[in-house]
Amino acid sequence: MTINTKKLAGISAAKLVKSGMVVGLGTGSTTAYTIEEIGRRIKKEGIKVLAVHTSAASEKLAKKKGIPLTSLDKHPVLDIAIDGADQVDARLNLIKGGWGAQTMEKVVAMSAKKFIVVVDESKAVKKLSMPVPLEVLPSAKKLVEMQIKNLGGKTKLRDYKAESGNLLIDADFGTIEKPDKLDCALSKVVGVVGHGIFPRRMVAEVHVGKKNGVLILKRYVLTMI
Amino acid sequence: MTINTKKLAGISAAKLVKSGMVVGLGTGSTTAYTIEEIGRRIKKEGIKVLAVHTSAASEKLAKKKGIPLTSLDKHPVLDIAIDGADQVDARLNLIKGGWGAQTMEKVVAMSAKKFIVVVDESKAVKKLSMPVPLEVLPSAKKLVEMQIKNLGGKTKLRDYKAESGNLLIDADFGTIEKPDKLDCALSKVVGVVGHGIFPRRMVAEVHVGKKNGVLILKRYVLTMI
Repeated sequence: MTINTKKLAGISAAKLVKSGMVVGLGTGSTTAYTIEEIGRRIKKEGIKVLAVHTSAASEKLAKKKGIPLTSLDKHPVLDIAIDGADQVDARLNLIKGGWGAQTMEKVVAMSAKKFIVVVDESKAVKKLSMPVPLEVLPSAKKLVEMQIKNLGGKTKLRDYKAESGNLLIDADFGTIEKPDKLDCALSKVVGVVGHGIFPRRMVAEVHVGKKNGVLILKRYVLTMI
Repeated sequence: MTINTKKLAGISAAKLVKSGMVVGLGTGSTTAYTIEEIGRRIKKEGIKVLAVHTSAASEKLAKKKGIPLTSLDKHPVLDIAIDGADQVDARLNLIKGGWGAQTMEKVVAMSAKKFIVVVDESKAVKKLSMPVPLEVLPSAKKLVEMQIKNLGGKTKLRDYKAESGNLLIDADFGTIEKPDKLDCALSKVVGVVGHGIFPRRMVAEVHVGKKNGVLILKRYVLTMI
């Protein structure tokens, strides 16, 4: 029997959802299992949750699974947000945006008290290395390409657009030694609406689905007394 | 006779436009004189220019004045861009966005080899102090308001939207001691598409219309040999 490691991670995170919570729902194949499980718990356990979606895909799936939806305008602070990632490094920095929804995903993640990431073990890496997805204003395409080149990156335009109508460009920087620094640099690129580096300070837990179970990585914040 | 200091500045900058150039055209009452003057020179002096607009308003005016338009997609590098500002400090840092077009204005300014600013003397201040216009994703309204509060700013939502359909929020930080630092901080605010701080490194010249003439401030870049 093949172990569905995405499903293990997705269901593990759904356990964190308690009745009465407002929940952010991410986009992608692993989060789909989270959404499904939350829907199941509403039906079987009678828990009461409200959810905010990050894309048309997560909106559609949530509706199908009977999860009542709300908006960030009505609920600006979420109790929890659960989303996938394309890569997670050893310090819990992420790259997101394989689905091109990274801008809204970051807004939802930032709006949550706890942001939980669900991945299968193929996404866990020592250092981030995949191209970083950028959402780009159409008129700034060339300008962004030039700025990324100046930062040492290679750009590739996707052949489909973000839900907003903006362009999606993947920026390849090879191995990313300092995600924090790249986060800052990409945030300053004029014409970029949102980028796929999610620095570790945004992340509370990562649930990694493995063949022998789920590994839960937590980011501890040391407090000086 | 009243001296039109906006007109003095606007016409002064238009003198920098040479035949064969591709020119970025800003938005606002002072830049309108620049656009008018470029149109006059096309008609009377026969100079040949192509222009890129920053807003529906500048597009309309350029067309009316007979200036042929192109796009950043066709001409990603502009020879010059001319635009107004709401405040200019003594070191040539700017605040822009009184018209809510700051996102596109920054893209156009960054795309130009030389970015020229035109203002009347009422805009020249020692230190920047007006609220900074932000273009904000509608779903991130509350999230942005919280992040701005954490940065020490007070927010006010405008009752009209940006051309993109995004919200316009003015963020008041009082006197801005370090525009460079605020530029960086605002760029990192999740949900902000573009903000009105234009740091001095973007600016080549500021033409200040005064009752006794035009004061031209240039930013010199020292080069180490």
